[in-house]
Amino acid sequence: MTSSDNARFGVGLLGHGTVGGAFHRLLEERADAVAARTGRRPHVVGVLTRSQGDFEEILAASQTIVELIGGIEPARTYVLRAIEAGRHVVTANKQLLSQHGDEVFEAARKRGVQVRFEAAVAGVIPAIRVISESLAGAYIERVHGIVNGTTNYVLTEMARTGATYAQALAAAQRLGYAEADPTEDVSGKDAAAKMAILARLAFNARVGLEDVRYEGIERITPDDIAYARELGLSLKLIGSAERIDDGLAVMVYPAFLYADHPLASVDGAFNAVTIESPAITEITLSGPGAGGIQTASAVLGDVVSTMLPAGAQPPPPRAVKLVEDVEFSFYLHLEVADRPGVLARIADVLGRNEVSIKSVVQRGLGDDARLVMVVHPVLESRFRSAVAEIARLDVVRGDPRVIRVIEETFEAPGAT
Amino acid sequence: MTSSDNARFGVGLLGHGTVGGAFHRLLEERADAVAARTGRRPHVVGVLTRSQGDFEEILAASQTIVELIGGIEPARTYVLRAIEAGRHVVTANKQLLSQHGDEVFEAARKRGVQVRFEAAVAGVIPAIRVISESLAGAYIERVHGIVNGTTNYVLTEMARTGATYAQALAAAQRLGYAEADPTEDVSGKDAAAKMAILARLAFNARVGLEDVRYEGIERITPDDIAYARELGLSLKLIGSAERIDDGLAVMVYPAFLYADHPLASVDGAFNAVTIESPAITEITLSGPGAGGIQTASAVLGDVVSTMLPAGAQPPPPRAVKLVEDVEFSFYLHLEVADRPGVLARIADVLGRNEVSIKSVVQRGLGDDARLVMVVHPVLESRFRSAVAEIARLDVVRGDPRVIRVIEETFEAPGAT
Ligand SMILES: NC(=O)c1ccc[n+]([C@@H]2O[C@H](COP(=O)([O-])OP(=O)(O)OC[C@H]3O[C@@H](n4cnc5c(N)ncnc54)[C@H](OP(=O)(O)O)[C@@H]3O)[C@@H](O)[C@H]2O)c1
Ligand SMILES: NC(=O)c1ccc[n+]([C@@H]2O[C@H](COP(=O)([O-])OP(=O)(O)OC[C@H]3O[C@@H](n4cnc5c(N)ncnc54)[C@H](OP(=O)(O)O)[C@@H]3O)[C@@H](O)[C@H]2O)c1
Repeated sequence: MTSSDNARFGVGLLGHGTVGGAFHRLLEERADAVAARTGRRPHVVGVLTRSQGDFEEILAASQTIVELIGGIEPARTYVLRAIEAGRHVVTANKQLLSQHGDEVFEAARKRGVQVRFEAAVAGVIPAIRVISESLAGAYIERVHGIVNGTTNYVLTEMARTGATYAQALAAAQRLGYAEADPTEDVSGKDAAAKMAILARLAFNARVGLEDVRYEGIERITPDDIAYARELGLSLKLIGSAERIDDGLAVMVYPAFLYADHPLASVDGAFNAVTIESPAITEITLSGPGAGGIQTASAVLGDVVSTMLPAGAQPPPPRAVKLVEDVEFSFYLHLEVADRPGVLARIADVLGRNEVSIKSVVQRGLGDDARLVMVVHPVLESRFRSAVAEIARLDVVRGDPRVIRVIEETFEAPGAT
Repeated sequence: MTSSDNARFGVGLLGHGTVGGAFHRLLEERADAVAARTGRRPHVVGVLTRSQGDFEEILAASQTIVELIGGIEPARTYVLRAIEAGRHVVTANKQLLSQHGDEVFEAARKRGVQVRFEAAVAGVIPAIRVISESLAGAYIERVHGIVNGTTNYVLTEMARTGATYAQALAAAQRLGYAEADPTEDVSGKDAAAKMAILARLAFNARVGLEDVRYEGIERITPDDIAYARELGLSLKLIGSAERIDDGLAVMVYPAFLYADHPLASVDGAFNAVTIESPAITEITLSGPGAGGIQTASAVLGDVVSTMLPAGAQPPPPRAVKLVEDVEFSFYLHLEVADRPGVLARIADVLGRNEVSIKSVVQRGLGDDARLVMVVHPVLESRFRSAVAEIARLDVVRGDPRVIRVIEETFEAPGAT
């Protein structure tokens, strides 16, 4: 064995579908960066699907097994066998963990290996890690979540367009936000499996899918949504897990939320989880709920964790080139003389400096006239020199006021 | 040494002010729960303040040192000495890490100990853990944050009440959201220190406070806020750290955000951090930004992490009593005959079942009349039996529709 063999980390990949395929590509793309962080270069030692690969061979060559087959069998058998063989396991399998969690976690405890499953619950939202690690010392009182992107997309579309449930679901299917058979999602069962997993973690209690009472969104009508809008409420499919006296209630149901609830503004295929505890008040985590590459990112985070000792320091940081001059969109507020031609003169200065106006409002009269504008993204240096030139114009009084404007770069999937 | 001594975990506490005092109480309160999770019972072996405690004695008796003094010296000397002595260090000290991070992290790397600092950046929001662990394999492109609660409170109040900067700041001081000398906060320097820490982690780059260009909120006028409101924008003090070509830009500045930006709705003393990466789109974390007990919770999460091996499985879960009948506020939608006395008969049924009406709207005419109401929190079983009785009334047509209503339990600090 050469030293470069020594520095490799074998990942056995079970399943090569939407998530498995995306994970495989992501791992190759990020292998160098992971090697820089962990000292070992991860590589896929073998892939198992229905038509390729041999499980025992893959197991023998791997240090961590990534299970992305889904469903109970054969995933359960492979996961238990991997644990028994002393391998860490990373999985996105909510069915398995919500129905056979006791068996899987007990096996991992006995064998002293890690079972990580960030991707099983809420896409890239690190709810599992935050609950089990950041809040390992906390008394958690309640967890509320929007943990199914399909139903949130459908409800958001119903609210946005006034569509019926059937219409919004059909649109979601056309756009790939809902599967051909959406039963598990719209019935609330998918969310119930995820809430069982969250409840187990948050309360260290034996909670399985069978313990979760769930209702879906099939019977929601445009009427209900119209009523919600009228009163400033949002309608969401909510998963909740909470302590009630000395017991627990774990449920999934459609619910109206007041506008100030942290989950009220989570739209489209986004997911979010709010964790409440007396000492922390509440923490809310939000992000895209599903998608192959997003889920694969959560899997990668877990794989890297199985490669690192606890609290491993990152390698020495690299020196960095600092960029001081950055493109921004800007707001510009000017006090100007209220006479003809003022705007033209200012626009001329901006134009010569290649600053382009996005919107402009003029108001007030006489000495109190104001010109308020927003310009398209432009290098700050260029904008500042235009403003300096404008400040010297005789029609401008006082100091120009400049504030940056940030536009949302990413669109929430499905939110238009 | 008895086995019960063996099972204790010594925590040395430097500083016993707002955060240190709260942490001390929280650790005692949660010691049993932490012992159940980790197998060792944490206890404070000694406290150092200006008037009590001996550092070397505390160091000798501790496994993890918690530094909650703040500022550069003597915190720096103590932290470096603890690392040199092979102790893990947990700190909330943004000044130290943003100005002497290289020295501290290099020492920890050499000695193989953990330095954890969740509380240094954004209160209880687990930004440090998520960036350094969940996203350890990810390519992070940009981090945007509202990382100073004082300034966010002041800006929120200016927007809510139309107050000037000076008025809003004075109110914040009266309510304890701003210190007597608020310079570090309002100048943007506090946020700059936090962004330096986040940028170092997100990009594994040598970034210190001196690399961050910052502006504060002192010059914001009610005019700017009024303009923002008119256009549906929010004005926030934003910290940003982003890759630009082969360099980095790390800045703090007031900025207008469009309403769909995930940070636009973060109000009052709350903090939030949005992390953008092509594979994950974006993750947003939000929660209270400061406060002794909240900060102490973040410190406790870090201390527990120093007690656990990587990926330690939780202990076997306890069996749990499931509560099926839970109190909720409900929305009830009825199709009713449009004739006098209908509401009275329905209200009578509700009253007899001890269900109390919060609001009610009647609309439509003739056979299409509808009664839509929200009731105060009540046990579900009681509400359902009232509804079953209502469904049997001859004035009610079709099936009653019932949806739960969730009210926000916690108030954002400072948001009224
Ligand atoms: N898709 C998402 O956005 C998403 C999000 C969160 C979590 N997840 C979870 O991720 C997991 C994978 O989901 P996916 O969407 O990637 O599923 P998928 O596209 O259906 O892929 C499943 C993969 O497993 C393989 N497989 C199925 N049965 C097998 C068997 N008996 N033996 C060996 N291989 C078998 C399939 O092989 P063939 O290629 O031979 O059919 C395929 O490669 C599931 O647990 C799912 O719940 C998915
Ligand atoms: N307060 C918050 O909400 C908050 C939030 C996030 C982070 N933090 C950070 O948490 C840290 C502590 O903040 P804090 O608000 O708790 O500060 P604090 O209330 O001023 O308490 C400071 C403590 O340190 C002790 N101390 C000061 N100088 C010392 C010295 N030379 N030797 C030994 N002990 C000394 C003080 O001792 P005496 O009792 O003898 O004066 C006091 O017990 C700081 O790094 C701060 O930035 C605070």
